[in-house]
Amino acid sequence: MDYDVTIIGSGAGGYLAALHLAKKKKKVLIIEKEKFGGECLNYGCIPSKALIELSESINYLETMPGMKINYNLDLNEWQKWKNSMVGKITGNAERACKARGANVIYGTGKIINKNTVSVNNKEYTSQFIIIDTGSVPVKINGINDVYYNREILGIEKIPKKLVIIGGGYIGVEIGTAFRKLGSEVHIVEMKERILPEVEEDLSRAVDRKLAKLGINIMTSSRVLSVKKSGNYTVKIENHDNLTADVVLMSVGRIPNTENLGIENAGIDMDGKFIKTDGHKRTNVENIYAIGDVSGGPMLAHKAFYDAYVASENICGNNTVTDYKSMPLVIYTDPEISFTGKTTEKYKKLPLLANPRSLTMNQSDGFFKIYYDEDGGIAGAGIAAPRSSEIISEIGIAIEAGLNLNDMFLTIHPHPTISEGIKDACEE
Amino acid sequence: MDYDVTIIGSGAGGYLAALHLAKKKKKVLIIEKEKFGGECLNYGCIPSKALIELSESINYLETMPGMKINYNLDLNEWQKWKNSMVGKITGNAERACKARGANVIYGTGKIINKNTVSVNNKEYTSQFIIIDTGSVPVKINGINDVYYNREILGIEKIPKKLVIIGGGYIGVEIGTAFRKLGSEVHIVEMKERILPEVEEDLSRAVDRKLAKLGINIMTSSRVLSVKKSGNYTVKIENHDNLTADVVLMSVGRIPNTENLGIENAGIDMDGKFIKTDGHKRTNVENIYAIGDVSGGPMLAHKAFYDAYVASENICGNNTVTDYKSMPLVIYTDPEISFTGKTTEKYKKLPLLANPRSLTMNQSDGFFKIYYDEDGGIAGAGIAAPRSSEIISEIGIAIEAGLNLNDMFLTIHPHPTISEGIKDACEE
Repeated sequence: MDYDVTIIGSGAGGYLAALHLAKKKKKVLIIEKEKFGGECLNYGCIPSKALIELSESINYLETMPGMKINYNLDLNEWQKWKNSMVGKITGNAERACKARGANVIYGTGKIINKNTVSVNNKEYTSQFIIIDTGSVPVKINGINDVYYNREILGIEKIPKKLVIIGGGYIGVEIGTAFRKLGSEVHIVEMKERILPEVEEDLSRAVDRKLAKLGINIMTSSRVLSVKKSGNYTVKIENHDNLTADVVLMSVGRIPNTENLGIENAGIDMDGKFIKTDGHKRTNVENIYAIGDVSGGPMLAHKAFYDAYVASENICGNNTVTDYKSMPLVIYTDPEISFTGKTTEKYKKLPLLANPRSLTMNQSDGFFKIYYDEDGGIAGAGIAAPRSSEIISEIGIAIEAGLNLNDMFLTIHPHPTISEGIKDACEE
Repeated sequence: MDYDVTIIGSGAGGYLAALHLAKKKKKVLIIEKEKFGGECLNYGCIPSKALIELSESINYLETMPGMKINYNLDLNEWQKWKNSMVGKITGNAERACKARGANVIYGTGKIINKNTVSVNNKEYTSQFIIIDTGSVPVKINGINDVYYNREILGIEKIPKKLVIIGGGYIGVEIGTAFRKLGSEVHIVEMKERILPEVEEDLSRAVDRKLAKLGINIMTSSRVLSVKKSGNYTVKIENHDNLTADVVLMSVGRIPNTENLGIENAGIDMDGKFIKTDGHKRTNVENIYAIGDVSGGPMLAHKAFYDAYVASENICGNNTVTDYKSMPLVIYTDPEISFTGKTTEKYKKLPLLANPRSLTMNQSDGFFKIYYDEDGGIAGAGIAAPRSSEIISEIGIAIEAGLNLNDMFLTIHPHPTISEGIKDACEE
């Protein structure tokens, strides 16, 4: 065998698996068809966070009493900074893999049989294969030439008028950011409400802020066609046509298994996903699949975790996934975070009762802590600035089996957003 | 008896004790000589966080590639917003106390005997007394007419040139904020380094950023005199004189026990502090002291916690303080947080390895996790943006007896600053 493990795809899961396996002295080959680091680092969560951060700061200053700001944003210059920032992260990841002895080949990996992967017309054998080929945006027949996450995050001019098809987390994050940067924004969602990924309480908090920002939300609305000739014309059922200079399509993502040679190794599928067990192992015992392609929520941190579980199993340490405290974070305004599960019993504290939020001129949102019969922490939904940074407290509480009083009695620094968790937990 | 409990001082500890006791059906009197909410809410942590937030946003945009900003800050207008924001917090606190049945009297409370407190020439008896009179800035003989925290946070014009005497957390927080708002800033510290409250690693991270910002730091330097005639002239040993339009004195705080009538009840002191046991009880068994006046770190969240402990004991529930995961947070650049204790063994991850920080154009800092012989989490020192929001994770880990692997295996959302804790904990 040429390698112990061949990893197809260097995204969040792939590079983390490589790092982990190489640290355990496995001989690792990573095959990457585009950019090292995959979708999240290059075209997804990292660039979008940079854009959102920028838009939030501008909006905060524009709405702060006593402040008058004028600014000029050279988005082309900013993109250069962003690309260099992303390059540092992906470069560090690639260098770290190589420093631990992993080999990286650029090209399209294809499974030939259960121990063989080809790339650039050469075949490599390995004892194990990990598939981490990620996902691609859903495209709709007949709708062409629109923007997807890659194009919108690489844009070099703020759109004058932006129509977003799909009110899930990507659409709402991007829509909010461009609205704060000056675009006129329309979001068209087929379902009855935006952010169907999260419970209604949380999406309503965002809804209210979107309205305040002047974003036009059309729910229960179906796009019939998008035509481009110069500008775009978007035809929506029961609505007037919208014209726009940019149309973003964000109606979901599907696993990326095209031309992967799945059938050559006899790997079972689960719909469009590769079927895996709790070890992240496919029906072919030496082949694993992790991250978006393997089902479950399409989140980079889920891919990280999958990578760890698959790697441990490959190293002979029996490890099974446990997603019970998997967080979901949406970088909207307010920022939405959720982990664990909902229960009938909960404590809810309005953001208005959190002094740190008020110092940031923010008061829309809440802390909602779910608990079980015995007061044990079961989950939380938080709509608050920086909620992404405090949700792991709840994850740890769930994992450690802590109860409301444990959280209330842990001294939280004042003034912080995280105090809201403590205060909400008071019995 | 007129009341079950008389609380002298409505600061962080006082109002929280009132809320807690009133909830437990105790008849409570709160005596406040100035503003409800005390130093932290009115003149300390809350206004300073608002100012720091403003300065950070401006600095972030001014240094962001591709951005050009011009702004005009009408500090007078901003102060009105800040005062109204503070008013909401203090108003809510006062209303909440009253809604639960507590009585509030404005005036200077004086202890007459172990069951009697006078205010506005009237005497009130109660079964218990809680002293929460807080602290005041240290003043130096012969140095007059300078700014302290109250004056600097109420200022209505950005100083052209600001000299800060004392490089502790107040001096460095305020100095950084005004530098980012355009002031020329000099910080004079008697000790060998700034931020002597925290370990050297942490203060060095701030030191480097202060230098980048162009703040002049003079350590091991003693101020000999401050003269005011129009501008200030500050004479410093072994240095040239400094002139300034504003001089901030921040050389520490002392407990506030003046005219409190301590001696009338025979309460023991511990130096300038009121001596208390683990129940926050003084030597006089029905009199408690909490917060700054009772010793220990002068932090609002310490006062909150003391208030809870004293209240529980008054309600007959034997409760003893346990400060082992008490956090300390300094809102500098980078933001500094510490909890627990240092040990010989630690894991350290540079901020450069944290993608979320890079999206914020921040890379100076680190995550340092201390652990004991068995890998149990003992403490942490973090220099990172928003570290105040993530330090409670460590507090919870300490309280729950978790180890490095527990933290590493708890899925943290990506991309966040809090991921740095998980990544640092990898074994």
